[in-house]
Amino acid sequence: MTMNNTDLVSTLLLQIPDSKTRVRLNHFARRGLINYLSCYLQGMEAVNVERFSQYFGIDIRRLGLTTTTNLLSSSQRALLYGFVAHYLDLDDVQANFRGHPSAVIYSALLAVSNPNDRLEDLLWAYISGVEFAGQLGKLLNPNHAIQGWHSTGTIGSLAAAAAIGVYRNVTSSQLSAIISLASTQASGQLSQEGSDGKPLNAGFAARNAVCAYSLVSAGFSANRDPLANQNSWFSTLSQSPFNQQAWIASWMHPGQIESPGLWFKTHAFCSAALSGYDAAKQAWKEGIKFSDCNQIIVHYPPHGDAALTQTHPKMRLDGKFSIEYIIWQVLTKGDVHATDFANISLTSEEQEQLTRIVRQHDLPIGSPTQRPVSLELIIKSKVSRFDVKVQHGSPEDPLTDEEIINLANKSSEIHFETIQTLLNNSHQSITRLLTTINHGQEDVQ
Amino acid sequence: MTMNNTDLVSTLLLQIPDSKTRVRLNHFARRGLINYLSCYLQGMEAVNVERFSQYFGIDIRRLGLTTTTNLLSSSQRALLYGFVAHYLDLDDVQANFRGHPSAVIYSALLAVSNPNDRLEDLLWAYISGVEFAGQLGKLLNPNHAIQGWHSTGTIGSLAAAAAIGVYRNVTSSQLSAIISLASTQASGQLSQEGSDGKPLNAGFAARNAVCAYSLVSAGFSANRDPLANQNSWFSTLSQSPFNQQAWIASWMHPGQIESPGLWFKTHAFCSAALSGYDAAKQAWKEGIKFSDCNQIIVHYPPHGDAALTQTHPKMRLDGKFSIEYIIWQVLTKGDVHATDFANISLTSEEQEQLTRIVRQHDLPIGSPTQRPVSLELIIKSKVSRFDVKVQHGSPEDPLTDEEIINLANKSSEIHFETIQTLLNNSHQSITRLLTTINHGQEDVQ
Repeated sequence: MTMNNTDLVSTLLLQIPDSKTRVRLNHFARRGLINYLSCYLQGMEAVNVERFSQYFGIDIRRLGLTTTTNLLSSSQRALLYGFVAHYLDLDDVQANFRGHPSAVIYSALLAVSNPNDRLEDLLWAYISGVEFAGQLGKLLNPNHAIQGWHSTGTIGSLAAAAAIGVYRNVTSSQLSAIISLASTQASGQLSQEGSDGKPLNAGFAARNAVCAYSLVSAGFSANRDPLANQNSWFSTLSQSPFNQQAWIASWMHPGQIESPGLWFKTHAFCSAALSGYDAAKQAWKEGIKFSDCNQIIVHYPPHGDAALTQTHPKMRLDGKFSIEYIIWQVLTKGDVHATDFANISLTSEEQEQLTRIVRQHDLPIGSPTQRPVSLELIIKSKVSRFDVKVQHGSPEDPLTDEEIINLANKSSEIHFETIQTLLNNSHQSITRLLTTINHGQEDVQ
Repeated sequence: MTMNNTDLVSTLLLQIPDSKTRVRLNHFARRGLINYLSCYLQGMEAVNVERFSQYFGIDIRRLGLTTTTNLLSSSQRALLYGFVAHYLDLDDVQANFRGHPSAVIYSALLAVSNPNDRLEDLLWAYISGVEFAGQLGKLLNPNHAIQGWHSTGTIGSLAAAAAIGVYRNVTSSQLSAIISLASTQASGQLSQEGSDGKPLNAGFAARNAVCAYSLVSAGFSANRDPLANQNSWFSTLSQSPFNQQAWIASWMHPGQIESPGLWFKTHAFCSAALSGYDAAKQAWKEGIKFSDCNQIIVHYPPHGDAALTQTHPKMRLDGKFSIEYIIWQVLTKGDVHATDFANISLTSEEQEQLTRIVRQHDLPIGSPTQRPVSLELIIKSKVSRFDVKVQHGSPEDPLTDEEIINLANKSSEIHFETIQTLLNNSHQSITRLLTTINHGQEDVQ
């Protein structure tokens, strides 16, 4: 029997996992959820919440993460959650996807959650969404990102839609229709970097997924095969054909959440800048200061710095996407802090200083989980060079569970050890988790 | 002083028109509005309104076209209006845009209207949106459509956003931001044809525009130049550069709403089938019947029938995209009616009859506003041929105002002459128009 590509994906998504696989992959999904909640709480402190209150016409600060409210529709909540979780650009990344899985997928799932849903179902739906995002990303990237698309918005819309379908246990043909209506909304431009448009892309993707799910639930129809090799969302955007055998063989072997896995960010700037940051830290430790350098050359592989779009930032906020700005900060005062990325102009003198740092693209292309960089510092007649291939937090040098908890504990009054214990007992209801987040203590219901 | 591309467009959009131009172009906008309202009313009768009632959780039938309601947000109303107006595929088309302007732009404008807004401002905002859609379409098409994008959804999102900005009289920099947040949501796949996904694309575009406007109004920021020649929405999708001088020179000279102008559809089937329909009507008038014909050959230019995807329809509904089905209907009973496109199977005998009609692609390629066809009917040893180049309703053979009113009068109990009188006195408020539509009579307030 032949199946169309989308029905094949829907069938794969709805397979019941064996318990061993599930337990193993749950571990990664729990780490993702803790990091997501932490990013959400920090984002909520950082964003101008008044803007959202005005947009929705209600006091957002009092809303919290919630499954039941008459104040906002599920699509509106998805938009809010996705925006806030991605606001600081601190949230996790998956290398094949080239996007931020948790901000989109967990936001969409929480927006359609019912109070009695079980945490283990939330985790499995997330794992399934990450799988779909990673598999699609393998085919579409890097061309997709190079062309200017923000994978978090595009692929993210479909991945979150798939995750919702798994979570709500729809039929295979409903799942295909949900993916289809998400695909015809899927969008997002990388050029929004440096503005609210970037985190909005994550919110729009979560909204698109929830909207697709609600429309299909209400009986709306959709093109049956958005992943077809001709006349489809997939063929419009992809330069590689969809190969059914390859999808069957590689699906959850290993899980995309396990390998290449999730990349957790330790700093609130673009993860593509982490290797350059590490190299600059090494130089600082050896006593090199920016004022000593005649010139600084950052060597990358071709397109290795594609996400770092700001070569000449005018605002400190743009520094999140500028390796020049980050290196300059580290070699001037030893590190970067959240306050270094405020929406404040750089003086013309500061902008002038940054021009001393230039990029070259002469390193060999590495694996998708590596972001190799070579930092060359020219001090009078002497040249120092610092090479970094693997960053701490990346799948090849992952954070420990303890480090993830410690990062999360910095975000609020909540002791994230409590959340970790809750998640380990994943038969619990989602309400328990959300009550703990909203009130900073475990609800004893 | 140099301006970025988007700021230039925003400045052009916000120019105050001279009254002569305005009066001339208003004429076309009024025709578009009458046709839009007629399509909306027919769509509302045709769609399964229960689906929408379930989706929104309220009784949609009782809502009407409204500016003030606590029941739905403005984004939700934009989605509903766009979907309903495009549902029958009866709504107007603009050739450069290659999309349906009114379903997207009027839907977005009505969704953000205030009761006391004046009709003349609504009309001018619409004219401005059509201008932007046509200018963008000139640069992006035909590649954009050939690649699989549904211009109604993609370009439509930006055009509706621009129209809202003009309508609400925002500043130039706000207008750029609104266009930017619409661009990062802009999407829509042509492959949704034949499903609810197609009219949903019009609804999504209207929603995207309203959402962008509301977000910017609440203070959210966006990338400043989505129409830049590098790293932008425009550069991601376009193969032709944006030329500022060309935009300045051609802006509203002539208005895109005037030339190539709006194409009004006289039947609820794909407009690509209209020329074949006209030829079949000529044959019927000369007394030729399907039962007399041994074979029927429909001659097109190469790709002239690309949108007519159904050569062997199995359902009457698929007949909307089948020239064979439409010719068979006309030569059997003199015309086609809305009921001929119900979701009902064709018998195997009927399907067999349709195989007597074949296509050939041997005509020269015509202009974008023409859809040439040559219908060849073989009756025993005699051959009759009917050539049609220009269809009635197209910009080269436009409907008269009276014909547009007559078409509209078929759609409901409303006498559209009343609407026409209202629109001619365009200092009136929008509430007056909507009350007339909702209650079938003019409100005397």
